[in-house]
Amino acid sequence: MSDLKILGHFKLNDSFFGRYRDLVNDVVLPYQEKALSDEIEGAEKSHCFENFRMAAEKLRTGKSGGEFYGMVFQDSDAGKWLEGAAYSLGTNPDKELERRCDEIIELIASAQHEDGYLNTYFTVKEPDKRWSNLCEAHELYCAGHLIEAAVAYYECTGKDRFLNVMIRYAEHIYDHFITNKTEGYSGHPEIEHALMRLWRCTGDSRFRELAIHFIDVRGTDDGYFVREREKCGWTVWGNNPYDREYTQCHAPVREQSDAVGHAVRAVYLYTAMAEAAVETGDKELSAACLRLWESITEKRMYVTGGIGSAYEGEAFTKDYHLPNDTAYAETCASIGLIFFAKAMLGLQKNSRYADIMENALYNCVLAGIQLDGKRFFYVNPLEVIPGISGEAKTHFHTLPERPKWFACACCPPNAARLLASVEEYAWSVEENTVYNHLFIGGELDCGKIGGKLLLESGCPYNGKLQYRFRPNGEKMKLTLAIRKPFWCDNADISLNGERISCPEKDGYMLIGGEFSAADLLTVELSMPIRRVYSNTAVADNSGKAAIRRGPLVYCAEGADNADVLTLRLKKGGSLVIGDFEPNELCGIRKIFAEGYTEHSSSALYSFEPPKKEPCRITLIPYYTWGNRGKNAMRVWLPEE
Amino acid sequence: MSDLKILGHFKLNDSFFGRYRDLVNDVVLPYQEKALSDEIEGAEKSHCFENFRMAAEKLRTGKSGGEFYGMVFQDSDAGKWLEGAAYSLGTNPDKELERRCDEIIELIASAQHEDGYLNTYFTVKEPDKRWSNLCEAHELYCAGHLIEAAVAYYECTGKDRFLNVMIRYAEHIYDHFITNKTEGYSGHPEIEHALMRLWRCTGDSRFRELAIHFIDVRGTDDGYFVREREKCGWTVWGNNPYDREYTQCHAPVREQSDAVGHAVRAVYLYTAMAEAAVETGDKELSAACLRLWESITEKRMYVTGGIGSAYEGEAFTKDYHLPNDTAYAETCASIGLIFFAKAMLGLQKNSRYADIMENALYNCVLAGIQLDGKRFFYVNPLEVIPGISGEAKTHFHTLPERPKWFACACCPPNAARLLASVEEYAWSVEENTVYNHLFIGGELDCGKIGGKLLLESGCPYNGKLQYRFRPNGEKMKLTLAIRKPFWCDNADISLNGERISCPEKDGYMLIGGEFSAADLLTVELSMPIRRVYSNTAVADNSGKAAIRRGPLVYCAEGADNADVLTLRLKKGGSLVIGDFEPNELCGIRKIFAEGYTEHSSSALYSFEPPKKEPCRITLIPYYTWGNRGKNAMRVWLPEE
Repeated sequence: MSDLKILGHFKLNDSFFGRYRDLVNDVVLPYQEKALSDEIEGAEKSHCFENFRMAAEKLRTGKSGGEFYGMVFQDSDAGKWLEGAAYSLGTNPDKELERRCDEIIELIASAQHEDGYLNTYFTVKEPDKRWSNLCEAHELYCAGHLIEAAVAYYECTGKDRFLNVMIRYAEHIYDHFITNKTEGYSGHPEIEHALMRLWRCTGDSRFRELAIHFIDVRGTDDGYFVREREKCGWTVWGNNPYDREYTQCHAPVREQSDAVGHAVRAVYLYTAMAEAAVETGDKELSAACLRLWESITEKRMYVTGGIGSAYEGEAFTKDYHLPNDTAYAETCASIGLIFFAKAMLGLQKNSRYADIMENALYNCVLAGIQLDGKRFFYVNPLEVIPGISGEAKTHFHTLPERPKWFACACCPPNAARLLASVEEYAWSVEENTVYNHLFIGGELDCGKIGGKLLLESGCPYNGKLQYRFRPNGEKMKLTLAIRKPFWCDNADISLNGERISCPEKDGYMLIGGEFSAADLLTVELSMPIRRVYSNTAVADNSGKAAIRRGPLVYCAEGADNADVLTLRLKKGGSLVIGDFEPNELCGIRKIFAEGYTEHSSSALYSFEPPKKEPCRITLIPYYTWGNRGKNAMRVWLPEE
Repeated sequence: MSDLKILGHFKLNDSFFGRYRDLVNDVVLPYQEKALSDEIEGAEKSHCFENFRMAAEKLRTGKSGGEFYGMVFQDSDAGKWLEGAAYSLGTNPDKELERRCDEIIELIASAQHEDGYLNTYFTVKEPDKRWSNLCEAHELYCAGHLIEAAVAYYECTGKDRFLNVMIRYAEHIYDHFITNKTEGYSGHPEIEHALMRLWRCTGDSRFRELAIHFIDVRGTDDGYFVREREKCGWTVWGNNPYDREYTQCHAPVREQSDAVGHAVRAVYLYTAMAEAAVETGDKELSAACLRLWESITEKRMYVTGGIGSAYEGEAFTKDYHLPNDTAYAETCASIGLIFFAKAMLGLQKNSRYADIMENALYNCVLAGIQLDGKRFFYVNPLEVIPGISGEAKTHFHTLPERPKWFACACCPPNAARLLASVEEYAWSVEENTVYNHLFIGGELDCGKIGGKLLLESGCPYNGKLQYRFRPNGEKMKLTLAIRKPFWCDNADISLNGERISCPEKDGYMLIGGEFSAADLLTVELSMPIRRVYSNTAVADNSGKAAIRRGPLVYCAEGADNADVLTLRLKKGGSLVIGDFEPNELCGIRKIFAEGYTEHSSSALYSFEPPKKEPCRITLIPYYTWGNRGKNAMRVWLPEE
């Protein structure tokens, strides 16, 4: 999608994402390594590395030293963690981390069968049931995450040990499904995207063929998962194979229109579909991707970029059904939406994809991570009420505080691998054009363009972007395509202090020219505080507004406001951006909104209208909520 | 609770409930009889009577002629239907109906074992498992409904055949739990209330003893249902016996404070607790009843009188958690709340109990019944959105239209038995005082007071009440205690055209005197249109108001309003009551509210505030919604 691998060519230098980068390197990856090693006291046990140890022992001795523990997809956590660690090594070499990674890679390698097969659940627990329950058992999903990790590790460290292990496994899979013409595809998409990466990394077209095969056969059968269940006679969770929407096999992919089913599965699939459409130029496939993109972003997405309205099936539900307090909005699903957006940018450079990518990243994904990097949300509600959230039967999933670790720990390492490689989403280079999708500061080695481009970014605190140039020679010739974000109504562009104008195309401001080291290109993106209104079809947001500024959605939290449920925004009232507070929530600018608090009668129902009192509502960025103990939180506030 | 059995002493003459009485007699009972006989095309099969036939055949021949079909509590539907039919016969003798009832009673009798035991599920399907799974298997629940029916049939027809059958069964139960000291109580309360009725009907104190025993032992054990499950080793639905709140056995009843668990079970239990407290004068028990009453009505009840916020467990959740679109608000639960209110009136004549009783009856319960009497709601949401309600995974239970019958058909016959005996809730007599709790017109034979009292009531259309007297002699001396409802701010009382004043006690206006046939007592209850506001702790109702007038809660429905989700009530705007429209929804008065429709951008989110246009919002009584096809409905409307 980019002519250039951004990771490895970019030195991050950004006050906002720099903190996250350090957090990933210093806290998140070490913490998660401990979690996967079962060394965190009081946290749910992972057993992930231990499963590999037992599988290896069983291969070596014929007997495993214990029982498989954890989810059927526990292996994938190792893959995601290693992928994150690989990115970290790519930007921040660390011999000790690399040594530990190599050890874990050897551990994984030692759990590989002679024939290339590699899955600890099946090796330890169900050796006779390989490939028999693709619907539920996540074999191809785990393979996908390990393949992605192996590709990343090779690309970031140059070491091919892990890559070769996973090539052997991928060949095994190829032989099973292509050479031996075995029917089936994964209940949880992921392998498709991983195989596309493996093909781009190795150039081995079998992996591209296999990826496209899995995409093409999906939903073309008359109920593969039903037949499979009847045949295999076992089940992991008792998933209903007749619910074909859940696994996005209700129709051939080219005929799908509504984003349905398990949200993570959906966006992982759509990502691979878009990548395949880029590779093949398949118009039918790209049209389906566009329909599915619009279904999500125009009808089924929270203002925070969260997707999946229901705990039941962790799934999309229906158009405009976006309940705030019972939202699922899984961190992984928004990460997947970012993958999908990136893949769509491969099909078409249009700012709408990067707009959604930015929104999902700064809001839903970052909200998934405690500011200290040690706790994580899986579910990201837009409204939290202590005493109900996490406690009512309908709200067991919407926790008011981030737990330390999850039995099902897909989100934390997924967030780590995204943040460790965030520059891949911020930039892309196509021939002579450098696209700046996300305003993440640093230094990009522009490859063949012949020089470096430096960005100093005020985002998300302000909209000031300063681009400098370090040509290899005198000058570097390029077109800089800077996204004009949806939240900005005016962009002032100056070259060396002189205002310039530039053409716009599909939401990108195109500034072409030959630039020298003396040039300074400044872009001032206006970043007004915005009231956001929902389509009236979103029942939960009737009469309400949300507040955002720049990439950030804001929310009212109990720590700053006496009783969040009593807050009403004043229509047309003032909205003031506060100064940067470096010590508040790791550095934020609050918004102060003119509003009211309503005092109702203490009765459940009353004929007396609530008394209202003017008040100043304090709003904080949504991604920082839940860092100050259990309290109420609300994104959408009634307007008066 | 009343010195007088009202049913049999009251001739209903009321335009509103008269229609329902006719509907019950002419449509609902015949329709339900057909449903229980599996004669309704396109409706879910009941098999209820067929189960009795099979049980009888098995007792006679040793072999049953087929398989038990239906819920484990299918027998209870026969009980509830017969109870409704009994009340109907008590007020509206019908030889043909009585003959059919007698036949069904013979059928039931023929399914009784030698030892008195009577339950078709166990007789046909699980003959060796009697009394082994009280947690789930509803044996005592079914017994309760059949006992209630037998008592009603005896009281309304004078025939004791059914009563004697059920006395034998009650004796069997007494011997099992009291004489043989078998541990246990019912997972679904109902038997307790039924036994209280059987004791009052027969005077046999064993039944009172058994009722109080079941109340007393509940929750005093350290987990009876867990031990039972371990011992019996079988389960009906896989209910979790560790969830003790679900079955209200988490604490001894006298220590319970919050209304928790399955809402119908809860109110059935609380009803019996209040009845027991009346019987025994147990202060601890009555204090518990009061706490539970306040928990429901001050923190866990919809404005319609619906209770149970969650589909999950059909249950209460947490204080102030009252979602409108995913409400459970089961028809049966509101019927149970009416029973509980009636029992609380036995403890204390305070209008607050009758206020809740009226509210639940006119709103949630009547909404459960299609105006034609042929379709029923089990679940009564306060907001319905076509495309989401009944369709999203989270909304499968909130159907936008009443179905014909349910596989679990507890609600339709429960509503029938309530409506067929509604006068029992409207009136009570204690010594010389006649209490008028609900304004249902007709003629009450006041028993020892010596004469008849006639009420002509405008309710719910207007607040005009006209009381006339028909003394046996010249005059009748009584105190008429007329509830001053919570929705009325002014009551004008006139005797023969002269304004009089009267004392009030606990919400009842006390008009004492000696009245002759010439006297006319007129009470004009003001019935203003009211805006209702929730406690701000109810998150779903932030910034919203509901509209009610008199006993009726109103709602906006799509059939009258272009797009319900766009409607906004104007703060302080006019609210006008329409004329009585006899042909609209079986006779209603609409309310017309000044308001706005908001037109949002077609985008999912927009920075443009929605454009608002003044409009007239048409509101209809909540109980009439869903009678004109699938459309949107909303009780709580945002105010602007």
